[in-house]
Parts: sequence; C-alpha cells; structure tokens
Amino acid sequence: MQKHIEISDVVRITPTASVSVGAYGGRAKCLQRLIRLGLPVPATAALSFRAVRAIAAGDMLDPEPLLAAVDDAPLLSVRPSSEDPDWGGPGAILNIGMNDARHAELTETLGPAAADALYARFIHSFAVHVARLDPGPFDLPCRPDRATISAMLQAYETEREDIFPQDPTAQLQDVLRSMAREWDGPTARLLRGARGAPAEAGLGLVVQAMSLGLGAPEAGESGSGVIQFVSGRTGLPQITGRYLPQSQGREALDGRNDAMMLTRDPRGPSLQDHCPEVFDELLRAGDLARARLREEMQIEFTIEAGRLAFLDAVRVTRNARAAVRIAVALAVDGIIPEAEAVLRIPPAAISQMLHPQVDAEEDGDLLARGIAASPGGAVGRLAFSSRAAQGFALREEPCILVQRETSPDDVRGMHAARGVLTEKGGVTSHAAVIARGLGLPCVVGATGLAIDRRRREMTLADGRRLREGDLVTLDGTSGLVLGGAAKLVQPAFDDAFRTLLGWADEARDIGVRANADTATEAEVARGFDAEGIGLCRTEHMFFEGDRLSVMREMIFTDSAPDRAAALARLLPMQRADFERLFAIMRGRPVCIRLLDPPLHEFLPSGRDALHDLAEALALPLSEVTARVEYLSEFNPMLGMRGVRLGLVVPEIYDMQARAIFEAAVAVGDVVPEVMVPLVSASREVELVRGRIDAVAAAVRAEAGTGPGADLEYRLGVMVETPRAALRAGDIAAQAAFLSFGTNDLTQMTYGLSRDDAGRFMGTYVKQGVFPEDPFLSLDEDGVGELLTLGARRGREGKPDITLSVCGEHGGDPQSIAFCRRAGFNYVSCSPYRVPMARLAAAQLAIRDRAAVR
Amino acid sequence: MQKHIEISDVVRITPTASVSVGAYGGRAKCLQRLIRLGLPVPATAALSFRAVRAIAAGDMLDPEPLLAAVDDAPLLSVRPSSEDPDWGGPGAILNIGMNDARHAELTETLGPAAADALYARFIHSFAVHVARLDPGPFDLPCRPDRATISAMLQAYETEREDIFPQDPTAQLQDVLRSMAREWDGPTARLLRGARGAPAEAGLGLVVQAMSLGLGAPEAGESGSGVIQFVSGRTGLPQITGRYLPQSQGREALDGRNDAMMLTRDPRGPSLQDHCPEVFDELLRAGDLARARLREEMQIEFTIEAGRLAFLDAVRVTRNARAAVRIAVALAVDGIIPEAEAVLRIPPAAISQMLHPQVDAEEDGDLLARGIAASPGGAVGRLAFSSRAAQGFALREEPCILVQRETSPDDVRGMHAARGVLTEKGGVTSHAAVIARGLGLPCVVGATGLAIDRRRREMTLADGRRLREGDLVTLDGTSGLVLGGAAKLVQPAFDDAFRTLLGWADEARDIGVRANADTATEAEVARGFDAEGIGLCRTEHMFFEGDRLSVMREMIFTDSAPDRAAALARLLPMQRADFERLFAIMRGRPVCIRLLDPPLHEFLPSGRDALHDLAEALALPLSEVTARVEYLSEFNPMLGMRGVRLGLVVPEIYDMQARAIFEAAVAVGDVVPEVMVPLVSASREVELVRGRIDAVAAAVRAEAGTGPGADLEYRLGVMVETPRAALRAGDIAAQAAFLSFGTNDLTQMTYGLSRDDAGRFMGTYVKQGVFPEDPFLSLDEDGVGELLTLGARRGREGKPDITLSVCGEHGGDPQSIAFCRRAGFNYVSCSPYRVPMARLAAAQLAIRDRAAVR
Repeated sequence: MQKHIEISDVVRITPTASVSVGAYGGRAKCLQRLIRLGLPVPATAALSFRAVRAIAAGDMLDPEPLLAAVDDAPLLSVRPSSEDPDWGGPGAILNIGMNDARHAELTETLGPAAADALYARFIHSFAVHVARLDPGPFDLPCRPDRATISAMLQAYETEREDIFPQDPTAQLQDVLRSMAREWDGPTARLLRGARGAPAEAGLGLVVQAMSLGLGAPEAGESGSGVIQFVSGRTGLPQITGRYLPQSQGREALDGRNDAMMLTRDPRGPSLQDHCPEVFDELLRAGDLARARLREEMQIEFTIEAGRLAFLDAVRVTRNARAAVRIAVALAVDGIIPEAEAVLRIPPAAISQMLHPQVDAEEDGDLLARGIAASPGGAVGRLAFSSRAAQGFALREEPCILVQRETSPDDVRGMHAARGVLTEKGGVTSHAAVIARGLGLPCVVGATGLAIDRRRREMTLADGRRLREGDLVTLDGTSGLVLGGAAKLVQPAFDDAFRTLLGWADEARDIGVRANADTATEAEVARGFDAEGIGLCRTEHMFFEGDRLSVMREMIFTDSAPDRAAALARLLPMQRADFERLFAIMRGRPVCIRLLDPPLHEFLPSGRDALHDLAEALALPLSEVTARVEYLSEFNPMLGMRGVRLGLVVPEIYDMQARAIFEAAVAVGDVVPEVMVPLVSASREVELVRGRIDAVAAAVRAEAGTGPGADLEYRLGVMVETPRAALRAGDIAAQAAFLSFGTNDLTQMTYGLSRDDAGRFMGTYVKQGVFPEDPFLSLDEDGVGELLTLGARRGREGKPDITLSVCGEHGGDPQSIAFCRRAGFNYVSCSPYRVPMARLAAAQLAIRDRAAVR
Repeated sequence: MQKHIEISDVVRITPTASVSVGAYGGRAKCLQRLIRLGLPVPATAALSFRAVRAIAAGDMLDPEPLLAAVDDAPLLSVRPSSEDPDWGGPGAILNIGMNDARHAELTETLGPAAADALYARFIHSFAVHVARLDPGPFDLPCRPDRATISAMLQAYETEREDIFPQDPTAQLQDVLRSMAREWDGPTARLLRGARGAPAEAGLGLVVQAMSLGLGAPEAGESGSGVIQFVSGRTGLPQITGRYLPQSQGREALDGRNDAMMLTRDPRGPSLQDHCPEVFDELLRAGDLARARLREEMQIEFTIEAGRLAFLDAVRVTRNARAAVRIAVALAVDGIIPEAEAVLRIPPAAISQMLHPQVDAEEDGDLLARGIAASPGGAVGRLAFSSRAAQGFALREEPCILVQRETSPDDVRGMHAARGVLTEKGGVTSHAAVIARGLGLPCVVGATGLAIDRRRREMTLADGRRLREGDLVTLDGTSGLVLGGAAKLVQPAFDDAFRTLLGWADEARDIGVRANADTATEAEVARGFDAEGIGLCRTEHMFFEGDRLSVMREMIFTDSAPDRAAALARLLPMQRADFERLFAIMRGRPVCIRLLDPPLHEFLPSGRDALHDLAEALALPLSEVTARVEYLSEFNPMLGMRGVRLGLVVPEIYDMQARAIFEAAVAVGDVVPEVMVPLVSASREVELVRGRIDAVAAAVRAEAGTGPGADLEYRLGVMVETPRAALRAGDIAAQAAFLSFGTNDLTQMTYGLSRDDAGRFMGTYVKQGVFPEDPFLSLDEDGVGELLTLGARRGREGKPDITLSVCGEHGGDPQSIAFCRRAGFNYVSCSPYRVPMARLAAAQLAIRDRAAVR
C-alpha cells in the first residue's frame, strides 16, 4: 500500500518556517540561516527525514506542494541534509528538469554551449547515480555538444531499453527515491556508522531552484565557486577557494587549470579582479555569516548573468589545531561565549595535537595495518630487541622497536625507541599502555607480520622481508606502518590551545591528575597542568640499569640478611626517584603505588639470558632455572603480586615506604600518598598499614627535631578486584583514599585478560556482543556498577574519603562523565591525555549547568 | 587488685542445680546427668568458666563454699570441663589434700601400701603439673614406699627451695590456678583452635571428693576401671575396657599386664568373674545411661572397699562408620528421633567412609607432607608421567602419579593411577579438583619434594631419592606420603549408612546433583543417589585416545571444510559419550557444559611432543611451533575460552549440540540441559542460543515423525564471571537456568588464580587475612554477595528460572546453607561428596524446622 507523504513534511524554507535540524537535517537549517541573513538564496524546499523514509519505503510524493515551494522553477537541484554533515549522504544531483524540450528552449535563451552542457550533465548524473548504469558511455567531455547528448541518450536507451525520462516531475521522483534508498544501503550505513551516526539516523533532502552558473556570455558573468575565510589547516584567517566561469556545483575545486583564485594573485586571473563587486559582496556575506551563524563557513555560490546566489554553506573542514584557533578566535571576538568555545572542541581531537603526525596528504608505501594504540607518527629504523633499540639510541639514530609482544623487560627498549610496533595485543596490551604513558606512537596487533626475532627480520603479508635497520614510518593515529620516511607534521601546543584549556579549567568541577612513573612523565604531566600524580607505578623503577641486577639478587636469596642487604642497596635509588618526582610536582599530591607485579617479571626468560643471570649471580644454571620455574605462574595476573607479595615478603614494602618518607622529608612541602595494590580484603590493608605506620614512626624518630619530625602521609587502596569494590565499606575504614584501577577491574569483572583479548575482541565488537571494547570505553553496566557501589560504600565507610579512577579509562570522556556522576574527586590518566581530560571534564560541567538553567 | 570469685560461680552438682554446658562445661553437665540417673557419683562441685577466668587472672577463690560443696572430703580430684570435650584441657589432678599428716592417718586406716601410693602419686602430679618441675626425680616406681616419698619431698625442696605444701586448701588453690593458666597458654590455644574451638572458649573445672580405688585389701575390693558398651571402631555392641585393682584414674588402660578384661575371657581373670555384682551393676548403669543420656558413653568407675562409684563419663570416641551405626541404632531403638540421628553425624565425616583409608594405627615411614586434597588412601608405584602411569595400568600394577603440577593433558594418567601427588598447587588446583571428581586420593603442594621428571626420580627433604616404580602409600585424608605399602582399611557404605541417608533425603529441601564428566563418574553419582548431573564438563572427552589427534587436526586447519570434516569425525564419539550418560542417568536431568578450555590446552608442549605432533599432522615443525605459540596466552583463564571460543569458532558448539540432541533422541526420556560457559554479556547467550536452536530444529526435522520430532532442550548459563552475576537479570531472559560456577567466580572476584594461590594461601590463612581459603569455604561476604545478587536478579528476570551452584563449593555444608538461604534449587558437587551434601542439606532443613517450632 503506497501512502502519500504528509504535506507538513515538505516545507518551503523561509525565515520563519519551522525547519529543525532534528527533522530536516543540518543543510536545510543552514540554508534557512543564510536566508534569514538576507543573502540571495534561490527558492529552496526541504523534505523531512520522515518524508524521505516514506519515499524509501515506496510511498509516492505529491509533487505539487514541493514544486510550488521552489516557485515552479524549471530546473532543480537536490542535496542531502542529514542531521550531522559529517555523516555523509548521496551526492547532489543538479539540473533536474532537463529534457529535449527544455534543451531546445535553453539553446535559444542561453546559447547552445550552455544548453548542451546542462543537458549532458544531467543525463550523466541521472544515468550513473539514479539509473545506476555503467558510467563508461556517460563520460563527460570537456565541452559537450549536441552529438555528445545524442550518444548519451542512445546509450541510455540501449542499457535501459527505454527512452530517457522526459517528464520533469517523474525525473524528480526518481531522483528523490534513488537518494532515499541509497541512504538505506549497507555502504552508506557502514560509512556513517564509522563516523558515529546512530543506526536510525535520518536523511532529509533539500530541493532548490537551480541558479545555473552557465549562460550566454553576452548576458553577463556566469559561473560558480566556493569560498572560505580561514585555513582549515592552520585555523588562521585566509581566503581560500576557487571560481570557475561557466561551471556548476563544486567544479571549480576539481583542479582544472582554468579555475580562478579568489584573491588577487600574481600567477593568474582572480575573482577579485574579474568581478570586484561580486568579490566584495562575498566578503561582506562572509563577515555576516561568521558573526550571525557564529561559525566559519565554506560557502558555495553561483553567478548567473552577473547576479550572485548563495546555494549552500557548510562548516569549514578543519583539523584539531585549526578547530581550537577558530573557536578561540570566535570567543575572543565576542561572537560566542568562552564556554561555547570549550564545548566546540571534541576532546578526542586534542590528542592529535600533542604528537607529531604523519602528514595525511601523503600516500606512503603501506607495509602493514594494525590497531592504533597510541597516537602520533614516528620515523625510525627497525629494532628487533630492546638491546638493539638502545644501541640505536646510543648512536642517536631514531628507531622503532618491533616485538611480538612486549613485557616489562622491554620498557628500557621502549624508552630508547621513537615508536613501538607489536604483532600481538590490543589497545590495552602492555605495549599500548606503556606507549601511551610515554607518549610514544604505537601500533599493536599488526596482523600479517611474521617477526623472526632471532634473524632480526620480519616478513610482510605480501612476502616482502624487512631487516633490522630498515627505515619505516609508524602512524599510531591511524594504525598504519609505512615504508621509508614519511613527512611528519609537528605538534602545536599553541596559545589558543592554552587559552582554551584555561577556560576549561575555570569550568571544570572534577580533578585531573596524571599517571606518571618517571621524572620525564612527571614533567610532561606538570607541563600539561595535571593537578598531581594519581598513579606512580614503582615497578618500572626496578628495571633501570643496575637496579634490575640488585632486584634479582634479592629475589634469589633465601636469607633474610641477604635480602635486607639487597634492599638496602635499592633504598637510595628509590629515594632518589621519589625526590625527583616530589621536586617536579612540588606542592601537588603524588600517589605512589607500592610494588605490584609478580617477582618473575623481573627475571629473564630464554636460555642465554638465564645463563647470563647464573653467571651474574654466581649460581649454577640449574638452580637459576629451577627458581625461575618455581616463580612462574599459570595466570600471573591472578598470582602472587600486589599486596600478596607485600605480605609474604614485607621487607620490600618497608623499603619502599622508607624511600618515600625520606624523600618527602628531603624535598619538603609534600604529603605523600602511598597506595596498596590488588587488595581483596580489608585485613590486607590493616596489616600493611601497621608496618608502614611503623616505618613512618621510625623516620619521624630519626628526624629528631629536624625536618621530618612532623612527617605525614596518606595510605590508600587501589580498588581493582571486584571483591575490593564490594568490600569498599570495610576497606575505607583503613584508607584515606580509594583509587579504582579500572583496567584490572575490567579484566576481572569480565574474566578477560587484556593481553589475550586481541584475538577475539574484533569479532566481539563487530557482532555487537560488546557494544565497545570495555578496555577502551568503560563498561557502565558491569564494571560501572562495581565502581558506583564501591564509591557509595567507601563514602559510607568514611565520608571524607578521596575517590578517584586511575585506570586507562581515566582519560576517556565517557568515563569522566561516569566518575562525575558517581561523585569521584578526580580522574588520573596518561600525561598526554591530561589536556583531553581537562577539556572533557569542562564540557560535562558546562553542559550540566546549561541543563540546570 | 585481687577480687573474690562470686559464690554463684561455684556450685555443688545436684539433680536440680543450674549447671549449663555453656557456663560450666560438658563434663560438669554430664556428671549432673549421671547424678540424675541415681548413679553413685561422689560429691562433686563445678567452677564456672567465669570463675576459672578470674582465677587465671589472679583472683583468689574463697575455698569455703567449694569445700562445703564436696562435703569437706579429705581428698579431692580436679578435672577440666570445657564446652566441647574434644577441645582438650589440662590433665586431671587426683589426691589433692595428701600431706604428711594425712599420709600418717591413711597409713593407719588403709595400710602403708595404699597410703604411700596416694602420697607419692600426688607429689608426682603436683611437682610435674603444678610446680612444673623437671619430671626426672619424680618418676613413680611400680610400688612406691616411704623411701620414695622422702626422696620426692627432698627433690621438691631442692628444686623449689621450699617445702612441699602441706595445707590442703593451698594445694587446691595452686592446682586450680595452674589448670586455669594452662588453658590460657599458647599450646592449649593452638591445640583447641585446631579442633575448631573459638578463641574465647572457656574452661570450667570439676572438683570431686576422691573415691580412692586404693585401700586395705581386708576392707574389700578396691580398684578402678573404664567401660563402654560399643566398639568405637565398628559401632557394634561390644563391652570393652579394663579394670585394675588398687589403681586410680585411667591407669587400667595404661597397658599394664595386670589389668583385667571386663567380660569373661579365657586369657585371664575378668571383672565379670572377679566381682560379678559390680559387673552387673555396671551393665545396668550402661543401659540406663544409653537410654537416658541418649548416647553411647565411656564410663570411669572406682570400687572402694567393694562400693562402686561413677567418677566420670564421656561420649565413646568413634570413627565415622561407628558414629553412623551408633546413631542409627539409637534411632531404631526409639531412643532418639530419626532426625536427631541425621543431625548427629558431622557431614565431613562421611567422606572418610567412601574411600579406603590408611590405617591410622600404623606408623609409616614419612616421606613427605603436603595438603590433603582428596581423601582416601592408596598404595602404588611411583609414576612420573601420564604415559608411565598408563604403562603401570596396562600391567595391572597400581601406581601413584607424581607431577610438579597437572594439566588437562594428565587426566588420562590420573585415570590410570590410584592416587596423585603434586609438588605445587592447593586444594583447588587442577590435580585436586580432578582427583576429587575421580574419587582418587590426592596430596598436593608437597613441599620439600624435588621432582626430576626427566630422570624419573624425586629427592626428599632429607636427601633420600625415590625412583619410578618405588612403592609408596599416599594418604589423601591426612596429606602424608609414606614409604612402602601401609595397611588400608576398606570403605564401608553399609546398611546403617543407607538408612541414615534415606532419613536425610526425607528431611532435605534443596536438590543435590553430581558433577560427572564420564560414565564411571555418572555411575558413582547414580550409586550415591544424586538427583541428576549438574555439571558434565565435555573437555575431558576430547583427551581420550584418538579424539585428541582429531581435535588437534581441527585446531590446525584454517579451512572451514577441513574443520567441518574433523568435527564430523568427533561427532559420533561425542554422541556415544552422551548416550552413555543419558542411559546411566535415565530419567534424571543431565546438564552438559559446552567446551570451555582454551584450544592450546589440547596441544602438547615440549620439543619432543611438538615433533611428534608435526609428524602426525604432516606439517613442518616450525609451523606447528608457531601455531602453538600463537595460541599460547598470558593468562589462559581469562583468555579465549568458553563462549568466546564458541562464538569465534561456532562449529564446535554446533557439533556438540548435535551430539547432545542426537543422543537424547536415541536414548529417549531425557530433556538435555545445555550450558554455556564463561558468559559475561547476555548477547553472547543470545548468539549461541540462535545457533543451537537451529541445530535442534535440524535434528527435529531429520526425525520426521519418528522419535525426536518433539525434541526439547533447556539452554542455561554458567555464571562464573562477576559481570555475569551483575547482569543476571538480562542473562536470565535468555536462559532456562543459571548455574553459578563458584570456582571461577571466586578466582575472578578475588583476582586470585587457584593454581597460583598455593604459594601464599598458607600465610594468608595463618595471618587471618582471609578467615579461610575461599576455594574451600565459600566467601560469603564477597563472592556470596555476587551469588545472592545474581540469584535475585535472575529470578526477577525470569521467576521460574532454575538456580544452582556447580563449583567445588557445592559439596561444602556452609555453602549449601548459603545456597538454601539464597533460594537456589540445587547444588552440584563431586560424586563422592554427594552423600555428604545430602546429609548436610538435611541437617540444615531439620535445624530450620526446629528453630521455627
């Protein structure tokens, strides 16, 4: 049963018509705004989402009201108008209404060249985009003539076994139906889905009387062009665009060498010289649009027999840096409030700005494709081991560390490299997490690579082989690995950016700290105005240089005095680490997590490494091997680590606590926060707390009446097991703060190891089993319930307890929103995500306040 | 400040005195019962827990009321009276009041032999147990005389630099204080703690007028003895005990060859012949005590100058089998109700009865000590590999499989062995779980063993070396490994046991199913009257014989047709498995869990095994190695297993579903239950359900109008991730039942791998970090909250959903209590724990009903 479309779903766009973005789409709304500015826009009608949906379903459109709405213009264009212009849509179709009769008529009025061009273009569009015929026979020559038209009409008839439709109304119905159905097709759905469109996103259509851009030369200037007033690359004022006489649509931008520049240019003719009045009118319209539409627009215009018409306008496409400059400039010019400038920048765009990026305009030699795990671009030589990477670093040659997967042993190699590439793993694999922490570009899960570590080479999917030292480019923003050295665009942490984040901080109502393990990271965090360190993992400190061998000595001794001696050698090194951190963060809180990983992570694997270790420790190889085997675990994540290790070998935590306290005394002006990892029962905290209190008392006593006599510290718990969340009430009684480690909490709540999830996470997200990778985007339904419940019980247990999130999710806007709602005091994330988190938090606060008003 | 003890805390035991077990202890109460029966009990007073606590704290006892309560008897005994006799306590002290004067007096009245004996014994007891002197100088000769006494008094004076106390009241105060303080000592605390006493358990004391058992021969028979009327080993009626003339206390039992049997005996004199009237009086008293105390008692008596006195009575010590026989006999004789017989058997005792046990009366050569992981005793030859175990089995030689730890690969070896011994692991390690399932004795975590698998030998802590083939005895009940073949006592699943469990089933209100993977286990389950199979793990089925190689072929193929071909070969084998299970369980539900472990568990490790595999699959070794490496995981428990595997390689579940359905059709009379493992999101269930519904539809269609046309099945979910428990509401909408896998749920809630927990669980439980190993005893506070919450949400999501627990906890009485409270329909446990679970469930129901009344 065909139903007719309701009249209210077709509307002529006038200054007062009811044209909402949610019903008619963004283009329709934008055209109404242009009309309201008094700009000359040809008569335009809009079809609502509902109307287009009905057309796609086979309903017939009553053409009368629509044609009336465009003043019964002889020729029409149809353009898509989705809710968000970024969601795409079918291409515009121009010149609807052209047929043999109209062609004859226009040959008279505009001359044969213009008439032939109009008809040929329409036949081309209709045949290819509406009738969906093979494009070959409908290729447009530069100057179509009557013969071209005959051939095209003939080709159409042959292919369709029917003549080319001559009835303008039928043409229009066909165009509308074709566009409506294309929107429902799988390709369009996939494309807009990838840009974040919901499954039920609607399409509106805009039908406009054609302003031709073609005409008899004697009638005056005709042509079309596109103009914008800022650079989409820099965000700075700059008039760009092209104008092409005797053209339609966006042809001026097609790279034809007869297109004119807009502003005066020594290289050739310009619109400014060619039509100075039109040019001035465009400038005035540009100013008006910026002030009144409160945005930088790209405007499509035609000149028909000397008369300017505005056909369409869209937001200027821009990269992140330009977006920030544009928004800040609009606010500085008083066009938008500062809060709105803050709202206009998608937080995710920020991370682009903090790293060099591979220039998107270059095509590289694609070697492999993986998961974009840490943004930014890097060029370097392939290094197949940490040792090799350190070798390159010594020679000051940039390198890219390549591993099947990384382990804590590789952190030194990662420090030495410019980027990291792994064959295995997902966005929260070890490599990815560490790389984001270090701000290193990283691509993980690069399928198709076969890495032969021993031969120091890798084979690509296409059989090519790359060797250590070969030069590659890693694009951690897109997940690509390119051959050779691609061009990199340097990061821009400019004034506009600082201004914007300043405005953000004024609006923000949840704290943002950084996860930082090293002085370098702490400096980055400080540079990005983090309010403190929310998570300092101490284990990386034990991998550096001499420390690893002392650590191993400690692991290999069974005698308490020997263990104490090894720890005594580690103490000053740890103290120095903390002194540096406290000095860098002076006055801001630093939360230090006590040793977390299982001891076997500090031991090497592989025969050669074990042999070296046996030599270094002067122990028989068999003993070393047996010890390594003894310490190995089936599921290390769930083994003897964290507070379990702290209770079984308490001397380690004693040493760390002393290092922290002595450093705090030495630097001064700091109340260190000590965090106990992997807690699952309050008694664990009670026991650790007893010992650490004793260490604090000892340090105070040693200080006598000097500095340190009044040493204070705060003891807290990392909530990362489901049980700790459930028992947060008891645990809170023992703790000054609870910091939720959402990585491990997610792993345990799902029973899902982030390092092993790579093999099926793709399938899972694709099939909609999980709406999103829960390591990327906080699972509010499951993990989130544990967070909410843990936070509530924690507060009930101790009303003034500090609550925070310190997992990878800490920098994710959705998770920040969640934490705000749950009443957390702060989030903590990688230093490089701090600006993004500051911005996201500000946006949430601004939106909430707006909603309240 | 010393305080006096309140008078109400010292009471003379009369038939009407207020003497509760909770205030005065079990011995005091029992003596009151004997008095109420009219039996001749010497005057007795009881000191309350509070009084003893005060004495231990240094308070003085006003002796007057106490002495009055025992009729101012010249000589007194003091015995401990704790709440539960099993909690132990200080030894009895007799003859308090002996001093030089009394000695002289008694020499007159009883003769020098008796008087010397009494004084010498008292000096000995006082010196050793009260004054805590070195026992050497106080050794008692067989017949002490005046010289002995002088020597002892002299020794006392030398050691204490004070004369032996002569004031009877002071003696009594000293004895009371000494006993009160001993109860507070660390040794006593530790001992009673190990028997389940709470930390605050109190001690009462019983002070009794001495009935001497010694006297002038001319005054008539004097002596003492102990009698009981059933055997503590068999539970059958049998008078046992001894009587020794001129003796005190329990001396008759000290193995002296002059002690008499009680009943007429060809080997020597007996009490029955020696004092027939006394003997008859004892029999009458025994009958009376059994009927009125409703228990089999062991009675301590004296004959003083021909007069019988009852000093004390305690429950007859008994093993589990005897306990069942005694309780059932009491109920059959109408002395106690059947429900009370059910209540009297500790459920844990049941498991002792189902396996052969190492005879506790034998001392063996202790080789090693580990964790008692699966009860029972086994004798066999050491086998250091599954292959070796299978070799022994082929030669029909019993063997004990020894491994550092076991993996699914070893299940075949475990099937072939009589017992399993591992160096690593805890009570819920792989070895322990499988062994309990198979009913195999198992000792895990045997510290001090060094196993050299390659050399097929192990070194003990003392340096001894054992080789493959050496004979050992494994005691899975006590955790000991003994050299050679110890004597085993065979299990007793006798009529009394069946009667008791029949009564239990009448009382029970929660179902009990068994976890059974094989036909053998299913038969055991059926034999133990399990109501169905609650968990049939299908993975073990793939390890048998040919199947493993087909499974490996499937894993190694990348082509869908090859995979289908391999699965088609597995189908009839799986179907045959299920047919056997359905046939054994005919009419009872069988819940089959789809394949759960990660695929790499089906692949071998080690160079030789990989080489064999490469040969079998006709693939290059490098390819096989690469595949094995590719499939390996960091944390296999949290990797690609369970439903994740089911969704990524759906053909496996399709095959299993078909095998289940075809088997159900072939056997008939069964509605199979299909369970999806490791679910964390409802969409996983939805997707699997779609495919399995399709398989069911196909099987129905193939059945035409024949059997199977009306095939039904129930799809359920194994809730073992915290997220599945949290989302049980959504998940229930997709499922007919939810079965909570508490093993994995505990692992994930705590973030604790059961296989790796062994290294610190001991420390943790000792330090009270965890009150109990959460894998042994359900953690009600954490895991329990997830169970309760999951059950509630599941029922809200689908009111008629079936809820159950199928982890190791299913057989644990405390967990059964929890499941009853949470409204679960049934628990499922190892077949060998089914009787225990039936009993425990019955006790809970009976207690609840009693509480309601």
